[in-house]
Amino acid sequence: MAIVEISVVPLGISGCSLSTHVAKVLSVLKESSLQYELTAMGTIISGDLDEIWNVLKKMHESVFSSDVCRVLTQIKIDDRRDRKATPEQKIRSVMEKLSKG
Amino acid sequence: MAIVEISVVPLGISGCSLSTHVAKVLSVLKESSLQYELTAMGTIISGDLDEIWNVLKKMHESVFSSDVCRVLTQIKIDDRRDRKATPEQKIRSVMEKLSKG
Amino acid sequence: MAIVEISVVPLGISGCSLSTHVAKVLSVLKESSLQYELTAMGTIISGDLDEIWNVLKKMHESVFSSDVCRVLTQIKIDDRRDRKATPEQKIRSVMEKLSKG
Amino acid sequence: MAIVEISVVPLGISGCSLSTHVAKVLSVLKESSLQYELTAMGTIISGDLDEIWNVLKKMHESVFSSDVCRVLTQIKIDDRRDRKATPEQKIRSVMEKLSKG
Repeated sequence: MAIVEISVVPLGISGCSLSTHVAKVLSVLKESSLQYELTAMGTIISGDLDEIWNVLKKMHESVFSSDVCRVLTQIKIDDRRDRKATPEQKIRSVMEKLSKG
Repeated sequence: MAIVEISVVPLGISGCSLSTHVAKVLSVLKESSLQYELTAMGTIISGDLDEIWNVLKKMHESVFSSDVCRVLTQIKIDDRRDRKATPEQKIRSVMEKLSKG
Repeated sequence: MAIVEISVVPLGISGCSLSTHVAKVLSVLKESSLQYELTAMGTIISGDLDEIWNVLKKMHESVFSSDVCRVLTQIKIDDRRDRKATPEQKIRSVMEKLSKG
Repeated sequence: MAIVEISVVPLGISGCSLSTHVAKVLSVLKESSLQYELTAMGTIISGDLDEIWNVLKKMHESVFSSDVCRVLTQIKIDDRRDRKATPEQKIRSVMEKLSKG
């Protein structure tokens, strides 16, 4: 189980809204069976890393079109193998320690 | 209004759990009045950018201790100035387009 | 032609030096025919993106061993398709404009 | 001594070349006494971290203008405090281990 964050930024588009292009990228992800969460700064995917690599490639490709000449894609992989770590467990583990002060 | 994601990774610690150190970093952030959300891959802060810069410095510093000799901190700033963009608006804007297909 | 920067951080290792593990990751890259440059903050690879995706996977996997239980890998892709952009051209283009002031 | 990598991406500009804006950001950095190196994927700055924080703020601000409504800035800090680590030492340390195989 790996947890991966991806953000995709198209260049060459007019205006500074990215939501249309981010929605396009997410529609590719929706076709996979992978669990994901959209945050304000990227999309967090969790599951089998090989499956995730494949969908990352498709997500990056999906942004190119006639008005997008350049794409900056950023990927962060958190791959823990001593035990299974879901996104929820990671957050709960921090919040428990934060509440103990 | 800027939206900033920070993740802080201490090196030199034994074992591969980061939650204790992430909780320590978040306790610094809690002392500010800034709005934030903990995700599985970082902490997303939103508000006045000058205020955010100040708290980022403190968060980075807070991880150092006797057993932490090196800290890798990563910061992503999304600073939109043509209109106010909250984290919730960014996500809603994408979800609306995603649902229209 | 895409330009990709990768940095790989192993967790669970004692001490805070990463050079042994970074050298291990680079040895995987050296087996490919891809052009690369080691910088102080990562390794910049340029070439065919499909080839790069394959070597990124191997580089990430190569860090795991008995004393490495968790790996944080970060990848930045700059994929420009309106014209060929080598790392050297990108730098030269900026330096020319910088010298014009 | 910290080593920091920054990349600044302006949105809302026509076309997909960033070199003019990157040159503008670098001209701010040139006014400081900090050592830096321009790579194909960002600018690597090394020196006193407080000085670096100040110049990072100026570099981020310098990109805004009438045709730039949004700026995505990314910062990676490698802050090692058990011994002095220059960019050159980091690279040499890896290359020595790589050559030993």
